[in-house]
Amino acid sequence: MVYITRKERFSAAHRLARPDWPEEKNRLIFGKCSNPNWHGHNYSLWVTVKGEPDPETGFVANLAEISRLIKVHILDKVDHKNLDMDVDFMKGRRSTMEMLAVAIWEVLQEPLKASGCVLHRIKVRETEKNSVEYFGN
Amino acid sequence: MVYITRKERFSAAHRLARPDWPEEKNRLIFGKCSNPNWHGHNYSLWVTVKGEPDPETGFVANLAEISRLIKVHILDKVDHKNLDMDVDFMKGRRSTMEMLAVAIWEVLQEPLKASGCVLHRIKVRETEKNSVEYFGN
Amino acid sequence: MVYITRKERFSAAHRLARPDWPEEKNRLIFGKCSNPNWHGHNYSLWVTVKGEPDPETGFVANLAEISRLIKVHILDKVDHKNLDMDVDFMKGRRSTMEMLAVAIWEVLQEPLKASGCVLHRIKVRETEKNSVEYFGN
Amino acid sequence: MVYITRKERFSAAHRLARPDWPEEKNRLIFGKCSNPNWHGHNYSLWVTVKGEPDPETGFVANLAEISRLIKVHILDKVDHKNLDMDVDFMKGRRSTMEMLAVAIWEVLQEPLKASGCVLHRIKVRETEKNSVEYFGN
Amino acid sequence: MVYITRKERFSAAHRLARPDWPEEKNRLIFGKCSNPNWHGHNYSLWVTVKGEPDPETGFVANLAEISRLIKVHILDKVDHKNLDMDVDFMKGRRSTMEMLAVAIWEVLQEPLKASGCVLHRIKVRETEKNSVEYFGN
Amino acid sequence: MVYITRKERFSAAHRLARPDWPEEKNRLIFGKCSNPNWHGHNYSLWVTVKGEPDPETGFVANLAEISRLIKVHILDKVDHKNLDMDVDFMKGRRSTMEMLAVAIWEVLQEPLKASGCVLHRIKVRETEKNSVEYFGN
Repeated sequence: MVYITRKERFSAAHRLARPDWPEEKNRLIFGKCSNPNWHGHNYSLWVTVKGEPDPETGFVANLAEISRLIKVHILDKVDHKNLDMDVDFMKGRRSTMEMLAVAIWEVLQEPLKASGCVLHRIKVRETEKNSVEYFGN
Repeated sequence: MVYITRKERFSAAHRLARPDWPEEKNRLIFGKCSNPNWHGHNYSLWVTVKGEPDPETGFVANLAEISRLIKVHILDKVDHKNLDMDVDFMKGRRSTMEMLAVAIWEVLQEPLKASGCVLHRIKVRETEKNSVEYFGN
Repeated sequence: MVYITRKERFSAAHRLARPDWPEEKNRLIFGKCSNPNWHGHNYSLWVTVKGEPDPETGFVANLAEISRLIKVHILDKVDHKNLDMDVDFMKGRRSTMEMLAVAIWEVLQEPLKASGCVLHRIKVRETEKNSVEYFGN
Repeated sequence: MVYITRKERFSAAHRLARPDWPEEKNRLIFGKCSNPNWHGHNYSLWVTVKGEPDPETGFVANLAEISRLIKVHILDKVDHKNLDMDVDFMKGRRSTMEMLAVAIWEVLQEPLKASGCVLHRIKVRETEKNSVEYFGN
Repeated sequence: MVYITRKERFSAAHRLARPDWPEEKNRLIFGKCSNPNWHGHNYSLWVTVKGEPDPETGFVANLAEISRLIKVHILDKVDHKNLDMDVDFMKGRRSTMEMLAVAIWEVLQEPLKASGCVLHRIKVRETEKNSVEYFGN
Repeated sequence: MVYITRKERFSAAHRLARPDWPEEKNRLIFGKCSNPNWHGHNYSLWVTVKGEPDPETGFVANLAEISRLIKVHILDKVDHKNLDMDVDFMKGRRSTMEMLAVAIWEVLQEPLKASGCVLHRIKVRETEKNSVEYFGN
């Protein structure tokens, strides 16, 4: 079993706040991330799939195809966008790193499977200091 | 003459667009940076001052003081903010890297001079691929 | 289950040597790390906790609180300090990366648990080339 | 149990192609990596071993010895070389990251064991975007 | 005057050797870079242009256009190629970083000027340790 | 004229303090860098030389030779050492980045000249945030 990872980047705006909470509570819980006029990040995204290398090609997976799937299903929707206003798969979720990683897993799992890949891990890094990893349920 | 540099980071939202232009023209000139719902970046900022090292301390400048000035005059105003809506020194300017570097120069030059420092260079990096430098007029 | 990681940095001096060994033996076993007058590093520290995201906030853990705990319990004690002379939780231990990671785990586990976090991993990097990971016993 | 990792770098040429396939098929399957006149990378290699820290030294393993083994068995054979023409342990294999990681595992496992180390993971990164990990069968 | 920089990456094979020198002399002068079967690198390329920001857009230059020019004139010719065999603008030159930077300057200067940009600097990095800069004659 | 740069790293202990000042004054001026029991850093060092590329080799300078000179004259003296106690060329100087850069210039200038190289710049980085550059008086 070999694990193969593709790293991508995207730039997006977001804020952390519940519309059903008053601003003071959003400020208390989400701190400076609750700024009403948004803020943003250069996100890094790592997508890891696993499998046995194909004896004919030496590939676990074709990274060109994985890269294309990430572009179509994720990057085209989030890059230079607002995670809270523009992204269909984030509707109804807080745009925390945790929720973003879970959502990206849910979006990518089927297309990757259809390409013969078994998704193993989604890693999202928001700043140099903060990151999350999700391995499915 | 020795040049000493302090690097800081901040995360902000912005968009590139002129309010007096129709959306199609903003899209044509500013591309994906014109997204109406904003996008954002982790910005890196380098502030360089120059001078002769003080023979008593070996310092050209006290980086703790430079860091404090950058925090008070820049970071507290831009970090987790919207460059186009929340930042006084960006009012009336496009939030390009170029304009941001020039504005930061203008904001920092006087406080640094009052601390005995000669500002040499402002460098701003928006993404891993794009950066600007400004050395004053 | 989502894993969330906070990265911090600190700068410290240390040396690797046993006081009960002669210098030649320390030199033989610990190499250049045994320099009697110390040397030092910019250490990187990653603290990973795990859990289910809170449906209300989308957070596994509040990184501002984790960051505060790391600051109070670790960074304030090791940053710009001597790991062998100044740090209470390293008393009686070799200041190898391995021992440092184990000690940081032991120091952080209780305060993190009291904040509702389950510690998963401590990673310590001493130089670009050398790092360790500890997952508890 | 503590995991300790040594990172090394090397620069090598390679191409992805099967000699028993026509160029068009190699181009179709391996894309630009099939360029007949080779291309190359700065590879990063992480070797992770695991164990209990020795109570006398605080070491899981002596990184100087691990570094020497990686140099003798891997770096001296691949650095500034052609992976497909010059490297004995890659003979008969595609020089994909996957095959390279598996081969490096096979080469290092015995010498590391003879030095008292238990190999845990080989990670190979070909570009900033692409990497693999192998943990043994 | 503001300086704006675009960073790109490419992966290529090369060797350092003069065909009119015997192998021993190539080995003596060019060291391990003379390996007859090639080696390779992930190159980083920084292209810097300078100018006054346009008061209407806040741009010194449109980075999307600069990026397109670098792609068409440089990256499409060198990425996943052999600098000594595949690249027209390197014909008759040693593929040292120095010669590569000078050649890229010569190739890009005219197209950039035609787009209204004044080329200021070409920087090429071959490995983490080695880089060159060229500012024109 | 092409500028060529070699980057190296070293790990060292130091403190900032004047022996003729009381501890309170050292603490006031040098802050946490005055810790009496030392602290330390992973320093990065960039050495830049300039010249015309040799038409025969395409080299401004032989980086293997520059690397050797840096090793013999600098790294062997500072790596895994105490800058204030172990390093001859720092005797009588504060071990600030500024003084370190000036001292390294003074040490390297002659050996580089003897090898046909014109030293252009010494850059020293102490932490991710703090660096200095020196171009000679």
